[in-house]
Amino acid sequence: MTVYEQALALHEEWNGKLETVPKCPINSKTDLTYAYTPGVAEPCRVIADDPSAAYKYTIKANTIAVISDGSAVLGLGNIGAKAAIPVMEGKCVLFKQFGGVNAFPICLDTQDTEEIIRTVQLIAPVLGGINLEDISAPRCFEIETRLKELLDIPVFHDDQHGTAIVVLAGVINALKLTKRTPASCKVVVNGAGSAGVAISKLLLSYGFENLILCDRYGILNESTMELNYMQKEMYACTNPEKKTGLLSDALLGADIFVGVSAPGIVTKEMIASMNKDAIVFAMANPVPEIMPDLAKEAGARVVGTGRSDFPNQVNNVLAFPGIFKGALEGHAKQITEEMKLATAKAIASLVTDEELSEDYILPPILDPRVSSLVCDTVKKYI
Amino acid sequence: MTVYEQALALHEEWNGKLETVPKCPINSKTDLTYAYTPGVAEPCRVIADDPSAAYKYTIKANTIAVISDGSAVLGLGNIGAKAAIPVMEGKCVLFKQFGGVNAFPICLDTQDTEEIIRTVQLIAPVLGGINLEDISAPRCFEIETRLKELLDIPVFHDDQHGTAIVVLAGVINALKLTKRTPASCKVVVNGAGSAGVAISKLLLSYGFENLILCDRYGILNESTMELNYMQKEMYACTNPEKKTGLLSDALLGADIFVGVSAPGIVTKEMIASMNKDAIVFAMANPVPEIMPDLAKEAGARVVGTGRSDFPNQVNNVLAFPGIFKGALEGHAKQITEEMKLATAKAIASLVTDEELSEDYILPPILDPRVSSLVCDTVKKYI
Repeated sequence: MTVYEQALALHEEWNGKLETVPKCPINSKTDLTYAYTPGVAEPCRVIADDPSAAYKYTIKANTIAVISDGSAVLGLGNIGAKAAIPVMEGKCVLFKQFGGVNAFPICLDTQDTEEIIRTVQLIAPVLGGINLEDISAPRCFEIETRLKELLDIPVFHDDQHGTAIVVLAGVINALKLTKRTPASCKVVVNGAGSAGVAISKLLLSYGFENLILCDRYGILNESTMELNYMQKEMYACTNPEKKTGLLSDALLGADIFVGVSAPGIVTKEMIASMNKDAIVFAMANPVPEIMPDLAKEAGARVVGTGRSDFPNQVNNVLAFPGIFKGALEGHAKQITEEMKLATAKAIASLVTDEELSEDYILPPILDPRVSSLVCDTVKKYI
Repeated sequence: MTVYEQALALHEEWNGKLETVPKCPINSKTDLTYAYTPGVAEPCRVIADDPSAAYKYTIKANTIAVISDGSAVLGLGNIGAKAAIPVMEGKCVLFKQFGGVNAFPICLDTQDTEEIIRTVQLIAPVLGGINLEDISAPRCFEIETRLKELLDIPVFHDDQHGTAIVVLAGVINALKLTKRTPASCKVVVNGAGSAGVAISKLLLSYGFENLILCDRYGILNESTMELNYMQKEMYACTNPEKKTGLLSDALLGADIFVGVSAPGIVTKEMIASMNKDAIVFAMANPVPEIMPDLAKEAGARVVGTGRSDFPNQVNNVLAFPGIFKGALEGHAKQITEEMKLATAKAIASLVTDEELSEDYILPPILDPRVSSLVCDTVKKYI
């Protein structure tokens, strides 16, 4: 059986990967009088007087929703709300397993930006946070930005920020290994969707100055390409020399390549044209932009992918469970830029100088230290 | 400590009465490849081709939402979305405990009918059913009716139908005990909100012909009172003699009183004015329309209340868990009138002729036979 056949069989067996389970006993009429009527009226009254008491007496304390409109699911594209459910359920499982955070999947039967924003706003009262997932660019930018303004709970688009944080963690350790500083490096990010934009922004925040963003047509170029508003914004703050051309032109003399794009689009020649000790994150799934062995043959020193069967797996699960755990425990109203930078550094710090090597720049995803360290880090910045 | 103080302390200890728990193991990278990427893509693809496969591979199989706008919560009134959370969580706990149904609470930050309808529609893809709760009349009627038309999953306003079903179950056995038939009885329902309307409708469906609906101003009267559209509809099909006057006028010579109204508004004199062997359901919470001992002194033969500390507790929990369990197992698209009538009869049937007495017309709420019998009954009518 392939992994796909096996996964399908298991999904049928599970018949839902998540269940809701009572934390209060209901074994007698007395139990009912406390958990339900008439006793339940008392926490209701207290919250009616002081809405912040919802954190004390209800699941708002430790529950988020994983929300998608099914418009950009995994590598599958716009498959719609129902087909997105297995992914959102899986994400909820990871939130609980790695962060102890209760999560419920919501798949929205609309792809209208205004309707999505309004719906998320209306279902927010019971939630302590909102993880947006698999919403296509550029709608995802506006949806997240507007919801952050409207709501007093953390809103986090994981495809953007989770990816960006873990990439930065890997980059931090790759720089350490190759003894470079951000300001001295040329970076090329390929893919100008949600992940590419967020990675670029976070790398700039961290101190990179020379960063070129490319999409399928090559280096972003305001005069020849139709850019969306976010790509225009990125164009304005990247590519300081205003280079033009293809991805191969951008990579010439670059130090770092970050791909969140398409399988096999990077050649050995392109890697060979990069600077010595090139750092390559080829994260297209399931097939990377270039396979690690080819990149290494072409001279890359550090290669990361999204896959678990190669070294240096760049996986969001290193970030999102701990981030929400920390945000919920600390009643954070937002996940800030400071928190993201600190989280990337914290994840990087879990690889000691002794452990650090070409094949070990990130802690393994099952490392139990990760989510508690990330949690504590986020709480420091609330 | 009072029950309220104790309930508050317990709610703080629980800090949320519900958690989400993975049903699939995540102990290795291999587990991740099945429950999440890349394996999860396969059920996504299958559902994209055939949306009904969501019932096979996702939590849609056995998960509902308990949805409120906080406009009519318990006896507390319009306390809003956040203050309603403890009740909705409690309801979700009961769904799981008594019916094995996974339930998640959604408290909506709007009381606009159109927004509620649209929001529920948009979050429906992941849900196998929707339990509406504590939404004020007459908005609840339109919201439920419209959602039933829009969605292909069961939508059930429990304050209406759950209450109506359990009242009818009690009435069936009270009639048996007092050897009367529906057609021979005069019924007075006091309270013309969601529960009173639904109880009246179901009693009419069951075969009662002479039913008078009252509200706080007395017998519904189109010429002197401002009736909402549902009350007008009810006025047209009730009170065949078109009597006018107060509740006391309605009760004169009545056989059955059903109160879903306010504490202490029924006097001994009113009960004494009813027919011999009067049947009294005084369900105002937590203080009934008349206390059972007073009603008995005044000549009532059977008295039911909403309370667990008196005999004959009329509690929705006898109905809703089994109803959704059956509807989900059978992939019902609606909860029909037939299902409601059959459920009431099924609940009544759990009291044997030998057991039946003035103080035992309904099975106890913790009777484990109830939800499975109700489930099987509902499935027969899908």
